[in-house]
Amino acid sequence: MSDLKKIKPALSKGTRDFLPGEVAKRNYIFDTIKGVFRKYGFEQIETPAIERLETLTGKYGEEGDKLLFKILNSGDYLKDVPAEELNKENASAITKHIAEKGLRYDLTVPLARYVVQHQDNLAFPFKRFHIGPVWRADRPQKGRYQEFYQCDADVIGSNSLLNEVELTKIYAEAFKALRLPVVIKVNNRKLIDEIFSKVGITDKKSEVITLIDKEDKIGWDGVKEQLLKLELSEDLVNELHGYLFNTPYSDFKDSAAAQEVKEVMKHFTDDTSVVFSASLMRGLDYYTGTIWEIKCPSSSIGSLGGGGRYDNLTEMFGGQNMSGVGISFGIERIYDVMEELNLFPDTISQGVKVLFVPRDSACELFAFEQVQQLRSQNLPAEIFLGNVKKQKHFGYVEQKNIPFMVEVGANELQSGLFILRNTKTRTTTPDLDLSGIAAILTAQ
Amino acid sequence: MSDLKKIKPALSKGTRDFLPGEVAKRNYIFDTIKGVFRKYGFEQIETPAIERLETLTGKYGEEGDKLLFKILNSGDYLKDVPAEELNKENASAITKHIAEKGLRYDLTVPLARYVVQHQDNLAFPFKRFHIGPVWRADRPQKGRYQEFYQCDADVIGSNSLLNEVELTKIYAEAFKALRLPVVIKVNNRKLIDEIFSKVGITDKKSEVITLIDKEDKIGWDGVKEQLLKLELSEDLVNELHGYLFNTPYSDFKDSAAAQEVKEVMKHFTDDTSVVFSASLMRGLDYYTGTIWEIKCPSSSIGSLGGGGRYDNLTEMFGGQNMSGVGISFGIERIYDVMEELNLFPDTISQGVKVLFVPRDSACELFAFEQVQQLRSQNLPAEIFLGNVKKQKHFGYVEQKNIPFMVEVGANELQSGLFILRNTKTRTTTPDLDLSGIAAILTAQ
Repeated sequence: MSDLKKIKPALSKGTRDFLPGEVAKRNYIFDTIKGVFRKYGFEQIETPAIERLETLTGKYGEEGDKLLFKILNSGDYLKDVPAEELNKENASAITKHIAEKGLRYDLTVPLARYVVQHQDNLAFPFKRFHIGPVWRADRPQKGRYQEFYQCDADVIGSNSLLNEVELTKIYAEAFKALRLPVVIKVNNRKLIDEIFSKVGITDKKSEVITLIDKEDKIGWDGVKEQLLKLELSEDLVNELHGYLFNTPYSDFKDSAAAQEVKEVMKHFTDDTSVVFSASLMRGLDYYTGTIWEIKCPSSSIGSLGGGGRYDNLTEMFGGQNMSGVGISFGIERIYDVMEELNLFPDTISQGVKVLFVPRDSACELFAFEQVQQLRSQNLPAEIFLGNVKKQKHFGYVEQKNIPFMVEVGANELQSGLFILRNTKTRTTTPDLDLSGIAAILTAQ
Repeated sequence: MSDLKKIKPALSKGTRDFLPGEVAKRNYIFDTIKGVFRKYGFEQIETPAIERLETLTGKYGEEGDKLLFKILNSGDYLKDVPAEELNKENASAITKHIAEKGLRYDLTVPLARYVVQHQDNLAFPFKRFHIGPVWRADRPQKGRYQEFYQCDADVIGSNSLLNEVELTKIYAEAFKALRLPVVIKVNNRKLIDEIFSKVGITDKKSEVITLIDKEDKIGWDGVKEQLLKLELSEDLVNELHGYLFNTPYSDFKDSAAAQEVKEVMKHFTDDTSVVFSASLMRGLDYYTGTIWEIKCPSSSIGSLGGGGRYDNLTEMFGGQNMSGVGISFGIERIYDVMEELNLFPDTISQGVKVLFVPRDSACELFAFEQVQQLRSQNLPAEIFLGNVKKQKHFGYVEQKNIPFMVEVGANELQSGLFILRNTKTRTTTPDLDLSGIAAILTAQ
């Protein structure tokens, strides 16, 4: 490789490397959420990064289609382009001839494909979770990447509202385990429909939903102004406001929709983090029942997750109509908020408990044997093999967040007794033999 | 989405979905290996799937360049193609104008980029592991995929041979933990050089190395035949054979190379799975010291891993010359061999210990409360919310490998006592209250 032209090391825009400390924090979030998923019987699946463009195209609207990363066909990729089409103004028509594959845009369309394709080998109700990267050719900006992780749990093939209860409990338990204070907002699309028909909104439903979704940002006055521009009467808009913001769910008359909300909410009378919110809309129009959204009142960052019940996910792949319900954790944002609020435990590291530092090469083998003995007791331990004379071991324990350090010189070699240094408190414990060190590390 | 054309669900060729049971087995392998990496102080990193083509191109030879997946630029991707170049015969010249990004081909070139780019924020010697997918536009065939996982551990920036000892121990411990019987072959590139110069091979080294690498497949007679075609004398070839196959490392004279081998091997006098093999070559020519390869004698499948020491990994990105040494686990093949030899524990599942099955809707809420109580004790438990009348719960426990099942009907609702069914042995334990069930599950 030495003849190669030297290249400045750089990332593709909108992508990231993760340093070991960042991976440790990300794993802490993933493992916490996975633990809750598993406790509730959700099983992990994997789907490939690369999907056929036929599978992806047309599922995310026109804007979404533009954001799909397309992979150039291998070999002579121009061979199927009709000669008369091959000119510079024709990029969009040519694409289908030169790219058959793309990178997945979310985990939902792959789930739909997966369920239909593997239905004979899945246990229904199918409860799966999936954590993995997705790709979007969005313009990169602060907090928005072209490659980022999604984290979804869904139940396919059960109408029971206990699924909604379980998913709400998963949200509550996971955020509690992360010590992240959130509000879990719950609403129901059928209730929204009912309110709309009660106040008399019929043909402009989707515009109204989009506007109400902006209430967080522009306040009700801003929303009202724009609702009036849709030629809705002021009386209607005021009545709508009453239903959306000033009516507890127990006040809705006993319609099927209100009944569904009550069935879910009655499990959370003790949990003030779970709140009914008639004004929660969730713009995406494929939801048909319960919907969720997660807010963190201590941070200005937007939603930390959301989800809902939907009816026809698998239909696009010819699957029978199975009801589904699912939630998403916005793990990139959860990471950012946890950093902002300083919620990661101080002790997060990738696990090494002690670093043995041989003072010179005469002590190296002896130090190595001590480390191997600790490892044989399943204690993660390391020997420092870098430059001790340049004091590099101090930076090393700090960078790797290693809680203890032992220097090994002629004295230690002779006596078999060590001084254990706590790298956080900078206190030392002298005259320990190896089993004494093991006992302290085990007790941590 | 209901207006969409229905599409047959299908994977892009050479890619795979993983069912929950397969993910559980893959995680078992990953977690076992990760545990050993961590015990030895290796830290996980992540790099993006998408890299600049500038970073990837030219690192894997001409064949490798052809196998890179290239991502079409977003928007009007033809705008930078010189008009006179845009014709159907010109695909390879046009590529650079329409694709700036590609999918990573391995984890090694991204590591080199990463180390140079982040050197000020890394602890040296830098010990990292990385497990993740890579992509190659290879022709798919049995056991060969276009998207597959690699699993590497490397140490960058330390010359100490104790790194070699630790990496060999990692191999031995990981395969032992997986109960996979392997032979860990060790050799040293400097020793190969020495043998070659002793017998008089000078200008045809790489051809000879490639041929010796085939000994496994075509036997020494086949290798010899082809060596003779390179116009090497029969005497030379026979002498070479003696050194490669009939000389234990202790018989090599005390050159620096032989000394290095001895320094490593002396730590494995008790471990018969670690063997010196002078005929181990490892075709890739960037190795400069110790090399490894893993074979499984119980299976006809090829190598399960390999690695070596190299000197100039970071040079291609303008990094200072740092010595590196690393090993790879061939985890896709390890999975296949473990299936072939039936080595996965029977108990592998994603963790749910008991399924509660309400016989009718009157018992559902009660069953749910029992499940919630078990979960609150951190016991993974589930309630079946599918069709009980169609006996779907029996298939469900089997598919998810759930070890216990409890049916909840009017009797249980009244008495609070349950019958616990072991789904493997099909035996039952009657008259258990919930704490009795919890005790049995906890003891598992």
